[in-house]
Amino acid sequence: MSLPPITLTTDFGTRDSYVAQMKGVILGIAPDAIIVDVTHDVPQGDVRQASWIVEQIADTFPAKSIHVIVIDPGVGSERRLVALEAKGQRFLVPDNGCLSEIVRHSRPERVTWLNRERFWRKPTSATFHGRDILAPTAAHWHRGCSSVEFGPEIGPGTLVLLPECEAKRDDRGWNGEVVAVDHFGNLITNLRSSALEDQGLEDCVVTIGTNEVLGIDRCYADRPEGSLVALFGSSGRLELAVRNGSAAALLDAGIGANVLVDLPESGEGHDSRDSGEAE
Amino acid sequence: MSLPPITLTTDFGTRDSYVAQMKGVILGIAPDAIIVDVTHDVPQGDVRQASWIVEQIADTFPAKSIHVIVIDPGVGSERRLVALEAKGQRFLVPDNGCLSEIVRHSRPERVTWLNRERFWRKPTSATFHGRDILAPTAAHWHRGCSSVEFGPEIGPGTLVLLPECEAKRDDRGWNGEVVAVDHFGNLITNLRSSALEDQGLEDCVVTIGTNEVLGIDRCYADRPEGSLVALFGSSGRLELAVRNGSAAALLDAGIGANVLVDLPESGEGHDSRDSGEAE
Amino acid sequence: MSLPPITLTTDFGTRDSYVAQMKGVILGIAPDAIIVDVTHDVPQGDVRQASWIVEQIADTFPAKSIHVIVIDPGVGSERRLVALEAKGQRFLVPDNGCLSEIVRHSRPERVTWLNRERFWRKPTSATFHGRDILAPTAAHWHRGCSSVEFGPEIGPGTLVLLPECEAKRDDRGWNGEVVAVDHFGNLITNLRSSALEDQGLEDCVVTIGTNEVLGIDRCYADRPEGSLVALFGSSGRLELAVRNGSAAALLDAGIGANVLVDLPESGEGHDSRDSGEAE
Repeated sequence: MSLPPITLTTDFGTRDSYVAQMKGVILGIAPDAIIVDVTHDVPQGDVRQASWIVEQIADTFPAKSIHVIVIDPGVGSERRLVALEAKGQRFLVPDNGCLSEIVRHSRPERVTWLNRERFWRKPTSATFHGRDILAPTAAHWHRGCSSVEFGPEIGPGTLVLLPECEAKRDDRGWNGEVVAVDHFGNLITNLRSSALEDQGLEDCVVTIGTNEVLGIDRCYADRPEGSLVALFGSSGRLELAVRNGSAAALLDAGIGANVLVDLPESGEGHDSRDSGEAE
Repeated sequence: MSLPPITLTTDFGTRDSYVAQMKGVILGIAPDAIIVDVTHDVPQGDVRQASWIVEQIADTFPAKSIHVIVIDPGVGSERRLVALEAKGQRFLVPDNGCLSEIVRHSRPERVTWLNRERFWRKPTSATFHGRDILAPTAAHWHRGCSSVEFGPEIGPGTLVLLPECEAKRDDRGWNGEVVAVDHFGNLITNLRSSALEDQGLEDCVVTIGTNEVLGIDRCYADRPEGSLVALFGSSGRLELAVRNGSAAALLDAGIGANVLVDLPESGEGHDSRDSGEAE
Repeated sequence: MSLPPITLTTDFGTRDSYVAQMKGVILGIAPDAIIVDVTHDVPQGDVRQASWIVEQIADTFPAKSIHVIVIDPGVGSERRLVALEAKGQRFLVPDNGCLSEIVRHSRPERVTWLNRERFWRKPTSATFHGRDILAPTAAHWHRGCSSVEFGPEIGPGTLVLLPECEAKRDDRGWNGEVVAVDHFGNLITNLRSSALEDQGLEDCVVTIGTNEVLGIDRCYADRPEGSLVALFGSSGRLELAVRNGSAAALLDAGIGANVLVDLPESGEGHDSRDSGEAE
């Protein structure tokens, strides 16, 4: 029976051989490893996008999967590489905030600074630690090494975190923003479904720019083709979507766009729109 | 020895983590499964393109491979998800016509409606049945579950089919159209080589728009660089190609373009061109 | 324990099912094979780019890995398909120069012309030898067939080679050129680090177009964001890069651009620039 897989998330693209070089190194040490590509199209150096992606995959992979994230604009500088466990998963990453969501919403354990060179590929390139440090470490971890062998344990509190980016509650409802735009042009926000449980989803009013949607639906097919729909997507976050179309294109909106949710019990709408239409 | 692989065909693109989420779910249930990406770049919601792709791969995979297709514009609506066997392969798909070619040219067996929730991931998202229903079902099927466990058997005659799209024979030859354009700009038609066997391929005249090609060649290298060639491609369909170039770009043609084949014995050309040049 | 992997390098793109068809054929013969995608985005027919890519991966994969390269503009013509071993790796390729770097810098062994049809898929398409000849041959080789079974041995000296493309030493330093541009816009040259060992890297002057860089750094982070840096990249070649940016965009430079390196002991600069600024 196979061991839990190793996943790779990078900003390397797929035109070059960088991803394959990492896989070659892993398979040289752990020939049976199952390696899963998460994506290699994270925008260059975009640690924030990586943090959303990692949060999404942590819930879907088997326990003890090893997730290697190489969004590493500081490669070769003093930034640390670390191993840690959280949510039952294992992570190998540059300590640059790419695990911000994971670290904020769970209790990271056994955080280790990867400074034991005997686990590294030799010679060790100063520009490709993904291949020369993270890949061989992932393979050794996969094969049964304990992460305490990789280097000294460090306090979870010392991990680099990006500034918090959560929707805020005010007296009228929720004030959030678009944090990701997916392949379909769905606008994914920082408002989680858990925040809105039992709050009359049919009567919410969701506002983005000058557009309003009455009610949070269950799925795209609840609305006619081409019209805007608000729903909780597969990651449990509020999304704005267009059935068989692109909300990003329809609204000309992207990351950072403000999204307001007026709750039915809140009486008045947000200042930014005509309160008379709020319900 | 490994079991037959699970393949994935989607319109998810490769920027997001959706494909990886499906793989994580599969590997959580079937840790040894070999998973093969067919493509994730089917145009959004393009069930017709999916049907051509699935037909091509069915012939090349080992018996009992499980093909999961997630081109699912109706996710969350009343459209059914089904399991079926055909051509010695297993399929898990939304019942929206994405298996039209397979179903028309073979005898589907054990068609099952996937309505047994105990095989589903919980909670089950209304917008990502690929991850929450098809992926776990594929994993259970891979591990040895019988498809009769997944839900009630339904009649193959009730499956949704796209309108037929085959080249038509007339008294002068064949009247077809471009049904796909590949990465190289090859124009792939709905005229199968089996229709033209023993019919003097060297003397056929293939017409697309105002362009004519005399003779159906064996391979690209039979013509000089940059010139148009007609041949039966690797899928057994008539293709128009340009050696080391793009027929789509050269002819400014795409899906839906009419393609006529005048057979040598047919005497007169098609009306759409100067009959004097037909042979 | 798994056998060494099979890797695939093609110009097929990832929109069509061509890559998956090859995998299906491999898994039908070698169900346990681990298959790694190197890239499918080699520019169409670009044998030179393939030769750089193959050189990079040969050093990172486990011994006896099988690398299948399908950059094959001459498919169906008289060009040969060959198997060979070099650098401890195994290769299956069209004999068109795609192994030029490997063949020039190592001693190819057991070069075999693949002409034994019993290893081929039937019927054998004239346009897709990757699927019908290389894929099944890779699978049989993986399972333990000896390459002498695939066809007659041929002399390594008969292999097709691209014209040499190495940086040249002159009395002032090195005269090279950009041979590849990666996803990040890094400009990768044909000047290898081995050529510059012990030659005062801090005092070298690297010139591309009208731009000069003083000193060869260790990593991107040695320079401020947005400024040009010269370094030896992960493949051991001199690269011009911009930290968290694109050197290709900044310099509007690409493949073929001239790159000069003046060595500190060389006294005078290259003619192409003001010699007074050389040191």
